[in-house]
Amino acid sequence: MSLIHPVVLCGGSGTRLWPRSRKKKPKPFLPLLGERTLFQQSLDRTSDPNRFAAPTIVAGSDHCPLIEEQAAQIDGSTLIVEPEAKNTAPAIALAAHALPRDAIMLVCPSDHHIANRDAFEKGVEDAVELAREDYMVAFGIHPVAPETGYGYIRKGPALGAGHAVAQFVEKPDLATAEQFLASGDYVWNGGIFAFRAGAFLDELAHHRPGMADLVSRSWSDAVRNGWRTQPAAEPFSEIRGESVDYAVMENTDRAAMVAADMGWSDIGNWDALMTARQTDESGNFVSGAADLANCRNVMVETDRLRVSVVGLENVIVIVDGDEVLVTSREGAQSVGKLPGATSQ
Amino acid sequence: MSLIHPVVLCGGSGTRLWPRSRKKKPKPFLPLLGERTLFQQSLDRTSDPNRFAAPTIVAGSDHCPLIEEQAAQIDGSTLIVEPEAKNTAPAIALAAHALPRDAIMLVCPSDHHIANRDAFEKGVEDAVELAREDYMVAFGIHPVAPETGYGYIRKGPALGAGHAVAQFVEKPDLATAEQFLASGDYVWNGGIFAFRAGAFLDELAHHRPGMADLVSRSWSDAVRNGWRTQPAAEPFSEIRGESVDYAVMENTDRAAMVAADMGWSDIGNWDALMTARQTDESGNFVSGAADLANCRNVMVETDRLRVSVVGLENVIVIVDGDEVLVTSREGAQSVGKLPGATSQ
Repeated sequence: MSLIHPVVLCGGSGTRLWPRSRKKKPKPFLPLLGERTLFQQSLDRTSDPNRFAAPTIVAGSDHCPLIEEQAAQIDGSTLIVEPEAKNTAPAIALAAHALPRDAIMLVCPSDHHIANRDAFEKGVEDAVELAREDYMVAFGIHPVAPETGYGYIRKGPALGAGHAVAQFVEKPDLATAEQFLASGDYVWNGGIFAFRAGAFLDELAHHRPGMADLVSRSWSDAVRNGWRTQPAAEPFSEIRGESVDYAVMENTDRAAMVAADMGWSDIGNWDALMTARQTDESGNFVSGAADLANCRNVMVETDRLRVSVVGLENVIVIVDGDEVLVTSREGAQSVGKLPGATSQ
Repeated sequence: MSLIHPVVLCGGSGTRLWPRSRKKKPKPFLPLLGERTLFQQSLDRTSDPNRFAAPTIVAGSDHCPLIEEQAAQIDGSTLIVEPEAKNTAPAIALAAHALPRDAIMLVCPSDHHIANRDAFEKGVEDAVELAREDYMVAFGIHPVAPETGYGYIRKGPALGAGHAVAQFVEKPDLATAEQFLASGDYVWNGGIFAFRAGAFLDELAHHRPGMADLVSRSWSDAVRNGWRTQPAAEPFSEIRGESVDYAVMENTDRAAMVAADMGWSDIGNWDALMTARQTDESGNFVSGAADLANCRNVMVETDRLRVSVVGLENVIVIVDGDEVLVTSREGAQSVGKLPGATSQ
């Protein structure tokens, strides 16, 4: 059986995890869960040489030094330096050009958390089986709450170890999300995909011929420098950025999905991170120097200063460099709109 | 009419206002309300040269540099350096020795807040009138809440512009404090006193002859150095420390009181300080760089770092040097027991 080619996307600013996540060192490059960063954990999940080829990493030039610091260059791996951020469809297309046409790509974000590795591997197996039959496969996540921050996928008829896709659905309102959850027919769109490189480029050429052409020309003029490959900035800048969901998945006739129950979280804000962490018997979590007195469900993370918290519940305190954030768990979702987060 | 002699006592550690109040720079020497420190405001209240003589300040040696920094040396003023902290009775006795026997002393703590200066001045006038008749006069504060952290005074029969004292009462429990408040017969003991220096020394000699003798001997061997007077350490160290309330006021036959409604607060903790401050229309108060989003009754005070607060109510955030305190308003009273506050 041929090896699977991991494609790791390093985009996104992660302002909702400000002030730890900053423009210069965003979410993927922070050790938010365990000692390895989310980016390193993404590589770790696809590091078994018996199943996976060396990874293809796609990132902006700002983050290349972080990537080279955190990922010892793996034999045969490639770092594709996006000339500018144009969302996921062009990024995946660049990676597809870097691979043989019949290579099976496993596209993974670098800023998600997956608690259950076995379930992830089973999902990969199922997805790859469908991808080998030239399906465009999305990973669906069994929903555990009526989340309004995620896209959803409605399951179609059974297909191999997965399903056909009946419909991709944008972020719903709460009432709709509750309906989705109750029906059992919907899963979260986890942002993980599997397909053949050639099949992806063919679908892109069919549904987004302009984008496909610009990516192709940018790739033709790419400059290689060690493991870095720098596609040409000129045609790339003309691309209208679009997600892979919009550009390909919603349009293809061959959309498929596998459903995985793998303890997935997009760690979309401090509250989500707290949920993914192991708290003590009072529901508290502390990282760094902190004293808690009479607290429940309090999370403290501090890089330097001591934090003392008294008599609070459901509060998150983050100290990073010259910034202190104190938020209710509910308020965590609006952290990205704070002056400190938007002005950095 | 002869001038009144202000005696300003600079004791106390103020650990409940940690981390702003530290052993090295405690509460009296911080600008907690307005631009002048509480100590400076104590001097300001008794600075009218038509009514007041130069002040006598009593403090430990640790705090003398702060006092000299914050109080330009006033003509004729004296700084008495306590050899060690022995509570208020010996401190006041030292000041009494420094003054003529017939001088009227007005003893004021340096870490309280008085919002209504006119009411304070009226209280002084009433108290001094009684002190001239050789009464030992305490300032009672009209209670506005069933406080369990203050001592109380039960009013006796009318006496001049005030009352005789029926009883001094120690800090009550809540039920008792509520009874006191409802009865109208009780006032808070504000820790402000007026009496003749000679009368005080006579009462002390009568009720605490040992203490009076040790203070007297310590004063006899005092060394003067500029405006500083340093009583001898040797006999002073033998004193068993005691408050003026215990040593004199509860024992004298000539205890009197005046009741004042002067917006008094002992600023006993962060919650009390927040109450004494002018908040905005959402009940918030900010000092230093802070962004509040969707907050009510939140106080932030920061010396350096920016503090961002989201979605909280009745929370106090203090950043000072290398310490961050986040407390509920209720929790504020236990701040002094935090490891950070006790280990400094």
